[in-house]
Amino acid sequence: MKVYFAGSIKGGRGDAALYHRIIEYIKKTDPVLTEHVGNLNLQENNTPEGIYDQDTAWLKEADVLIAECSNPSLGVGYELAFGEKLGKPCHIFYDKSRTVLSAMLSGDPYFILHPYEREEEIYPAVDKILESLRGEN
Amino acid sequence: MKVYFAGSIKGGRGDAALYHRIIEYIKKTDPVLTEHVGNLNLQENNTPEGIYDQDTAWLKEADVLIAECSNPSLGVGYELAFGEKLGKPCHIFYDKSRTVLSAMLSGDPYFILHPYEREEEIYPAVDKILESLRGEN
Repeated sequence: MKVYFAGSIKGGRGDAALYHRIIEYIKKTDPVLTEHVGNLNLQENNTPEGIYDQDTAWLKEADVLIAECSNPSLGVGYELAFGEKLGKPCHIFYDKSRTVLSAMLSGDPYFILHPYEREEEIYPAVDKILESLRGEN
Repeated sequence: MKVYFAGSIKGGRGDAALYHRIIEYIKKTDPVLTEHVGNLNLQENNTPEGIYDQDTAWLKEADVLIAECSNPSLGVGYELAFGEKLGKPCHIFYDKSRTVLSAMLSGDPYFILHPYEREEEIYPAVDKILESLRGEN
């Protein structure tokens, strides 16, 4: 399963280490198209137009979108709407002890929400998502 | 012209007073469907599903989307992608002295960007947007 992992870049890198751990976990079994989102020393050398073209191409290529939404991000909100438009399965994780999710995401019946209290809950949920997609194919 | 004004709610209310001033300015000539975004004491009593249904109905009804994007926001990113999908004109304002805009917005050729240095630059730009839309009708 090709995974598009979405996390905040310009909106703030406070959760970059968390993104890194989730991406490394997924990569044990499946490729992550957006591996750079977990790079703790991320330097974006591409133009905004180049980044946009690359990311939308990856969204089209992906089998599933997994977003970590504890940190607000314009780009992640855009990517989720774009994934919805393409009909890709979209899974949203957020730490409910520190985040009240935007109603544009939590109120949209298309999205599959995974509120968690402890990071450890993320990994078995990711396993289930990938297993269930493999079962469909 | 019916205006959908987009600003951060759950992503942080640090710019709520700015949203309020922009909304009050637009309202001198045109209706703002999302006037509550500038409410400094905003209490959302609706369910997430109710908010989502109302906001997407307003996006469909609007003639133009005007977003203030200096503060990151999942909801505003989602709304911009939704407005693009509907083919609505989408204008993005941001304070370039404090914000590096997400490449998913700045790299998307559909969006019309209005980086500004001083708030005073916003108002004549809003006038031009509304005048040019009136000219088309």
